[in-house]
Amino acid sequence: MDECLKRTIGAIRPVDMSVIQAARARQDSLTKPQGSLGRLEELAVRIAGIKGDLSPRIERKAIVTMAADHGVVAEGVSAYPQEVSRQMVYNFLSGGAAINVLARHIGARVVVVDMGVVSGFEPHPDLVSRSIGFGTRNMAQGPAMDRAQAANAVRAGIEIVDAEVARGLDIVATGDMGIGNTTASAAVCAAITGQPVEKVAGRGAGLDDDQFLHKVEVIRRALAANEPDATDAMDVLTKVGGFEIGGLAGVMLGSAACRMPVVLDGIVSGAAALIAAALSPLAREYFIAAHNSAEPGHRVMLDYLGLDPLLDLRMRLGEGTGAALGMFLAEAAVKLMTQMATFDEAGIPRKGSLPGD
Amino acid sequence: MDECLKRTIGAIRPVDMSVIQAARARQDSLTKPQGSLGRLEELAVRIAGIKGDLSPRIERKAIVTMAADHGVVAEGVSAYPQEVSRQMVYNFLSGGAAINVLARHIGARVVVVDMGVVSGFEPHPDLVSRSIGFGTRNMAQGPAMDRAQAANAVRAGIEIVDAEVARGLDIVATGDMGIGNTTASAAVCAAITGQPVEKVAGRGAGLDDDQFLHKVEVIRRALAANEPDATDAMDVLTKVGGFEIGGLAGVMLGSAACRMPVVLDGIVSGAAALIAAALSPLAREYFIAAHNSAEPGHRVMLDYLGLDPLLDLRMRLGEGTGAALGMFLAEAAVKLMTQMATFDEAGIPRKGSLPGD
Repeated sequence: MDECLKRTIGAIRPVDMSVIQAARARQDSLTKPQGSLGRLEELAVRIAGIKGDLSPRIERKAIVTMAADHGVVAEGVSAYPQEVSRQMVYNFLSGGAAINVLARHIGARVVVVDMGVVSGFEPHPDLVSRSIGFGTRNMAQGPAMDRAQAANAVRAGIEIVDAEVARGLDIVATGDMGIGNTTASAAVCAAITGQPVEKVAGRGAGLDDDQFLHKVEVIRRALAANEPDATDAMDVLTKVGGFEIGGLAGVMLGSAACRMPVVLDGIVSGAAALIAAALSPLAREYFIAAHNSAEPGHRVMLDYLGLDPLLDLRMRLGEGTGAALGMFLAEAAVKLMTQMATFDEAGIPRKGSLPGD
Repeated sequence: MDECLKRTIGAIRPVDMSVIQAARARQDSLTKPQGSLGRLEELAVRIAGIKGDLSPRIERKAIVTMAADHGVVAEGVSAYPQEVSRQMVYNFLSGGAAINVLARHIGARVVVVDMGVVSGFEPHPDLVSRSIGFGTRNMAQGPAMDRAQAANAVRAGIEIVDAEVARGLDIVATGDMGIGNTTASAAVCAAITGQPVEKVAGRGAGLDDDQFLHKVEVIRRALAANEPDATDAMDVLTKVGGFEIGGLAGVMLGSAACRMPVVLDGIVSGAAALIAAALSPLAREYFIAAHNSAEPGHRVMLDYLGLDPLLDLRMRLGEGTGAALGMFLAEAAVKLMTQMATFDEAGIPRKGSLPGD
């Protein structure tokens, strides 16, 4: 295993249980009935445990949106032509995509990363270039990449988190762009969870019934041709993954190593999370599942990871759009825990604490 | 019926279907797969229809949080003493409550209204005084208020919306505070929907099993003693409602009359919405159900109203906390619809528009 990856995994620690206990006690001292903020209470408590800080700060927010292409599109698995990956990167850079709108709305920055889009890009001040290659190979005919490329993709994600931490970062969210990447994600999901392909594949950006059945068949062929080893996440990534999937797995591991909560988007982030959690089961404690995507494989992934999504708005766009909304909720949850008055501060008796109550 | 109320109901118009159609077409022109923003697309489309504006603005946001007391607390239906209503109003005014934290987070103002808290308040620059009385009477022994008080409560809500519109307003959310008000809300729900009391009552701020059974019995007694007329919403409000429930119903009607989307919070807002929708079925089109409260009666109310909540975070605090999160989503949805680039603007081919795709 790559040295950087080994060191990163070694640096991941369990969340701080003593801070979690103190945060729970703080929740119960705030001017509200106990538990009445529901999942926002749990969320803030977990972020406190992740950061080891009873008064965590969630202000400096980055959404890392990684783009790459997929050779498997040669099999006709996507409703959109491959050049859309590249065009959408330009859309991200000019601020016109959904993720830009939501990032502005929540006060987050978008870190746009080229992990391997076909034909590449001229240098651009707002584009992080970590291209591993001009798209993966067609996994229906052999491995999507070689093992060194898979390691390089993961390392790129780790290094991007380190660079963002150096710029100032309290929380990170993951996002993706890549025509064909729901096909690769479903293959990763089937390989790691052992669930049947027809249960984890979806209609991506908009396939009809016949196209969907064809996509299922292509994924089956890719799994049969490559025989990924479910017990070796880097083998799965190499054979049926994608450059952005590897990069996002690196973002997740790097975040956990920095004690940074990482908010997961949809099915492509889910595939990356399966890989990251296989490499470091501890990393999972740092993951916040923002939403349940309309892509059916996403629920399978979240169940496998033991994550309960915060939102279910039937979104299936990717880019980090669901994660951006989850990041807003994380900030809300932490502000409630750290800014609300306690019963003592407000001079309000607690439940049952008055005579005759 | 009160003249102001009659005029307000008469001013409520159906949402603009031509704008809704144009908004749907706009959604399909944006740089994303059709429908991939899920419920955020529907939400923005509906807000466009409500405002009759294809580029609606959601910036100036007010959360109207109405407080009142309930005579039925004499029956021992709440886990907290009655003086907490008053103390929580002071907490709102000093900015330490959950709703203050969330309002700051989403950039909204909180309009704190005394609709009838026991013993009242000294004048305060940030407190809107519309007190109908120092708490309702005990509905287990007779009507909670008289019919003139009910009309005054609704009119207060209408006038508060008008005043907020004059200050500048794009969207409004409803919230409540009042020890005992989940009891009144469950009674309103049972009276209007005809559902059994045990299905619509909940544990409020934290009742144990015995206390919950007692609360159910008290609500049954109130319904038996008063026999509210399910076909006359003002009769239901008078007999088993509350001053804040009437006020919030007025806020909802006033908002609809001004073509303003109104984001509903939990069970107390739900009770108000049942009354408002009974008075004006058209008003319902202006309602956005922010979340599904952990109080079981809330789901019954939303189903009856045909509203599908955006969030389900097991919250049950009231104050407008769920509505504040829904308001954030409404703003996000509208920004996506109005700020995203179209395929043409971004120079990206639409699905299936390229040869060979």
